[in-house]
Amino acid sequence: MKRIMLVVAYDGTKYCGWQVQPNGITIEEVLNKVLSELLQEPITIIGASRTDSGVHALGNVAVFDTNSRIPGEKISFALNQRLPEDIVIRESKEVEEDFHPRRCVSQKTYCYRILNSRFPVPTERLYSYFVYYPLKEELMAEAASYLIGTHDFKSFCSSGSQVADTTRTIYDIKVERSGDAITIRITGNGFLYNMIRIIAGTLIKVGLGARPPVNVKEALEKKDRAAAGPKAPAQGLTLEKIEYSNKSY
Amino acid sequence: MKRIMLVVAYDGTKYCGWQVQPNGITIEEVLNKVLSELLQEPITIIGASRTDSGVHALGNVAVFDTNSRIPGEKISFALNQRLPEDIVIRESKEVEEDFHPRRCVSQKTYCYRILNSRFPVPTERLYSYFVYYPLKEELMAEAASYLIGTHDFKSFCSSGSQVADTTRTIYDIKVERSGDAITIRITGNGFLYNMIRIIAGTLIKVGLGARPPVNVKEALEKKDRAAAGPKAPAQGLTLEKIEYSNKSY
Repeated sequence: MKRIMLVVAYDGTKYCGWQVQPNGITIEEVLNKVLSELLQEPITIIGASRTDSGVHALGNVAVFDTNSRIPGEKISFALNQRLPEDIVIRESKEVEEDFHPRRCVSQKTYCYRILNSRFPVPTERLYSYFVYYPLKEELMAEAASYLIGTHDFKSFCSSGSQVADTTRTIYDIKVERSGDAITIRITGNGFLYNMIRIIAGTLIKVGLGARPPVNVKEALEKKDRAAAGPKAPAQGLTLEKIEYSNKSY
Repeated sequence: MKRIMLVVAYDGTKYCGWQVQPNGITIEEVLNKVLSELLQEPITIIGASRTDSGVHALGNVAVFDTNSRIPGEKISFALNQRLPEDIVIRESKEVEEDFHPRRCVSQKTYCYRILNSRFPVPTERLYSYFVYYPLKEELMAEAASYLIGTHDFKSFCSSGSQVADTTRTIYDIKVERSGDAITIRITGNGFLYNMIRIIAGTLIKVGLGARPPVNVKEALEKKDRAAAGPKAPAQGLTLEKIEYSNKSY
């Protein structure tokens, strides 16, 4: 028996998120099915990040245990032959048998992408959130700076969540504009349910001038979901990478 | 009666190209239908560029004649309410009644996008051509320089074409790399059937080292389709803009 780690990229457009659920097809479900067929044994993967419906990934991480004799690093090639073209395994390799993608300490980087232009661009609609009114990215960056560090992010967590401890650490947030594209790139040690999308929605309100930047600090202190802004739509969000103890996937 | 010009952006993924045809739905067909409904009269548009199945546009141009009293510049808003989200009208306005998007002198800019990386990226698969083997963009740029100017591009035209005169002028070609993305941006006074995709396919062969750059000059001189490289796939191609006598759309 050996443990194999996968680095998975996907276009989340057609999927009901990562985690197996009854209402529609998920990334986890497709991977379990294709892996079980390939390795001729029942496979159940454990994923690092249970991304929502419509959210994309460049580097989600998953592990599974197998008796297969196929070398770990060859599994990606065999899998990519069988997977639909909106899921790609970027890497596969054998890891320690106690490596757990959620329990091991990691930092994750997400990117939220906004198209801020007079008209929506059809070829970008599935991978960005279109905002018509001009956004002031320097105000968004100022607001974002209040979120860096270790805080109770209860205000930035959807109410459906059952997590007891809502304290998380954000190492860095960068808000950058390149032409009509604004990206919010956030690195942290973990994120609450919908946290990145609520941060993005709140920063957009600041960029529009509807809230002053310092309002983000106040929202943190109130520890109340109602104090933060709306949740931005799923299609703008991409899980870019997960790093484990100096290793980046 | 007045003549209205539209600047049209679209994601070509789900369409059988611009021009109405029996085998599937086209951009032209959708625009004719939605315009006829909106303006309550039968509308038939004339397009500037009959892009192929799967090719995208940021700024194709079309005109139509109407008796409607809706001001020209308001038509875009009314149309965008009714169009599917993969077609967007960026601008509409009244033009001279003798303005013809193909007969009036123009220059067109197309961009061909290549993803040159170890693994395909799912979120880019519909808008770029994935090439695994490393491409040398400096060789591609050198090869491209032979195409600038007025030449007989017969070698770079699919054999199905019935155009008598295969001479065209290319004003500029730029081959640029940004990380894993290589773009080939071409501006000219007009292009033959599949010309950009054959140029892209030929430059990719050069970038791979399969042909020396000077081979492109030889291919031009042979005036034979077999002398050029293969046609690159449709999804990498975007019609970026069409400029008429100092006006850019």
